[in-house]
Amino acid sequence: MPPSLEDKIAADEMTSDKSRVTVVGSGNWGSVAAKLIASNTLKLNSFHDEVRMWVYEEILPTGEKLSEIINKTNENVKYLPGIKLGKNVVADPDLQNAVKNANMLVFVTPHQFMEGICKRLIGNIRNDAEAISLTKGMEVKREGPCMISSLISEQLGINCCVLMGANIANEIAMEKFSEATVGYRKDKDKETADKWVRLFNTSYFAVSAVQDVEGVELCGTLKNVVAIGAGFVDGLDMGNNTKAAIMRIGLREMKAFSKLLFPSVKDSTFFESCGVADLITTCLGGRNRKCAEAFARNGGKRSFDELEAEMLQGQKLQGVSTAKEVYEVLKHRGWLELFPLFSTVHEICIGRLPPAAIVQYSERTPKFSLVGGSAQFSNILHKQKL
Amino acid sequence: MPPSLEDKIAADEMTSDKSRVTVVGSGNWGSVAAKLIASNTLKLNSFHDEVRMWVYEEILPTGEKLSEIINKTNENVKYLPGIKLGKNVVADPDLQNAVKNANMLVFVTPHQFMEGICKRLIGNIRNDAEAISLTKGMEVKREGPCMISSLISEQLGINCCVLMGANIANEIAMEKFSEATVGYRKDKDKETADKWVRLFNTSYFAVSAVQDVEGVELCGTLKNVVAIGAGFVDGLDMGNNTKAAIMRIGLREMKAFSKLLFPSVKDSTFFESCGVADLITTCLGGRNRKCAEAFARNGGKRSFDELEAEMLQGQKLQGVSTAKEVYEVLKHRGWLELFPLFSTVHEICIGRLPPAAIVQYSERTPKFSLVGGSAQFSNILHKQKL
Repeated sequence: MPPSLEDKIAADEMTSDKSRVTVVGSGNWGSVAAKLIASNTLKLNSFHDEVRMWVYEEILPTGEKLSEIINKTNENVKYLPGIKLGKNVVADPDLQNAVKNANMLVFVTPHQFMEGICKRLIGNIRNDAEAISLTKGMEVKREGPCMISSLISEQLGINCCVLMGANIANEIAMEKFSEATVGYRKDKDKETADKWVRLFNTSYFAVSAVQDVEGVELCGTLKNVVAIGAGFVDGLDMGNNTKAAIMRIGLREMKAFSKLLFPSVKDSTFFESCGVADLITTCLGGRNRKCAEAFARNGGKRSFDELEAEMLQGQKLQGVSTAKEVYEVLKHRGWLELFPLFSTVHEICIGRLPPAAIVQYSERTPKFSLVGGSAQFSNILHKQKL
Repeated sequence: MPPSLEDKIAADEMTSDKSRVTVVGSGNWGSVAAKLIASNTLKLNSFHDEVRMWVYEEILPTGEKLSEIINKTNENVKYLPGIKLGKNVVADPDLQNAVKNANMLVFVTPHQFMEGICKRLIGNIRNDAEAISLTKGMEVKREGPCMISSLISEQLGINCCVLMGANIANEIAMEKFSEATVGYRKDKDKETADKWVRLFNTSYFAVSAVQDVEGVELCGTLKNVVAIGAGFVDGLDMGNNTKAAIMRIGLREMKAFSKLLFPSVKDSTFFESCGVADLITTCLGGRNRKCAEAFARNGGKRSFDELEAEMLQGQKLQGVSTAKEVYEVLKHRGWLELFPLFSTVHEICIGRLPPAAIVQYSERTPKFSLVGGSAQFSNILHKQKL
């Protein structure tokens, strides 16, 4: 069978210098990402105008298919209603078809689906493809965190950057000013990272790149544990002072934990949008903070399971499960004393400590924050410059 | 005339190893500091129990003297009503008398009075006296900031540490958990800094020390400029995402400005309570934020002078004057482009730019945050590791 016209065009484009982008995922954040990207591919010569967006097909109550209505109305009516994505965004319910011509793959699906999606992509992507993950949250196994960027790299044999930051999708959709951080792995990936920056950066979305893929990605997961702690403070009506202290201690533990697991992680990453800014956003708003506030207001008498069922319509809080996973790592490695905030958050979540324990630091912090401390931990801290 | 019994006791105590503390200042924060210190001097053997507090004498509406009523009721009824300071706090309206036996002087008066107070202390303090400044806010002259710690050191010829942090006095008075940072100058001052930590640290007030007196002190002043920016975002109803971005950019500019002026300033200082935590507290509450919010809500049509008069009963906003002073430094040194947030805050305050300019970063940030940038500034940034 001779190649179809469509195949010929595709082949032409693949050999041209223009990059083709596909967004794998079409939820709230995926749709906003497509909008950001689509505004740039129209402007920048180095990118093909069209942005493909893989849509996990759903039949809407009207009987219409989600992908079809996106292509008809140029809106993701289910996950980002009221926002035009750009006419150059093409929804595609066929995963393999959506990615086959793309050399820039933007992954933005919930982390629990990532492995399955990657498996379906093996052998179906371009050899020169590059990936970026926008997915926040990962499983933290006892042996260490399951980085989404590593999963994608290993499964597909391609390089994978990450993009994280203070990025509430609906606020960015409304073009309110925000920032984001691209994390890349090696010196040689700098050029690719700069390309991702150009693809995402707009007047209201200021993106910068840092060479610290693990640091950037871990921020997006660990902040949720801190947000639980901040929520407890809100529920206890402790005031801004205390909340700021808990957020600061949380940021320090995020940094220390990341550096102990990955010595390449840089302090400076935590000053980026993915670090301090995303932490602030998450501790001011966000459902982790909100449910934790309710938990503390109820004096810990209603479990997180119960509150989640009531407040989140069956969704589970990432922060509660991440706190548990991090606690297992700390216990396994003998680091519990080094991370009083992380461990206290978990112990409050499971009812072993009362919510007020979040601020009972007098017997909990000396190893870490005060002058002096035990020799064993001082050594770890000194060596690692935590 | 033979020495009085009181003089003899004083002489005994001066030659003993026990440290004697005097708090110079008795406003809201000074009173809380006296309470914190007094709880520790009772517990710790290395300190004399009594804490002297110099009170700028005032006659209350009841006709009573403030110092007398503090000593009678153990409360600062005017500046910290309802809080017992500790029976070992002794109010003293005579400045020279209050300091004469003390070897630990805690300065906590408004910055504009500091020079006058120091002049009255010359020749009236112990030779072995050490000082710490709790005073936030300083004048930033074109030649550079007038550090309160330097002023005290130079005027009195003694070493001076600083204590800064997310410290809303009334919240600490109610024993809500908080943290603070002691900044000290040289290696040899570490022991003194540890002594200050022991003097202030309680179960609800976690203090740690860092060797970076300028960094710690500058945080306490520069954060007010960022709070003005955060207030604009609130007034424009931009949401948490944008506010977090402005706070982050502000923290970065605080760090960069401090490091350009004092190359000894450390990045890590900005992760301490004096840095990120105080910034968070100030940008969540605080009058700088509040007035800036009102300014933006009025579209910049009512001046800060007018809003201050209405909202602050004649007090002036530190952030507005600091923004102006910092702007002068930036302009004088040719650094305006390096500090888009600081310069934009000032230009909005004086009506040269509309409040919405606070988030118009597309043409303002490239020299600093984005990949690339002009060679001149890249060099400065690279050399200084900003």
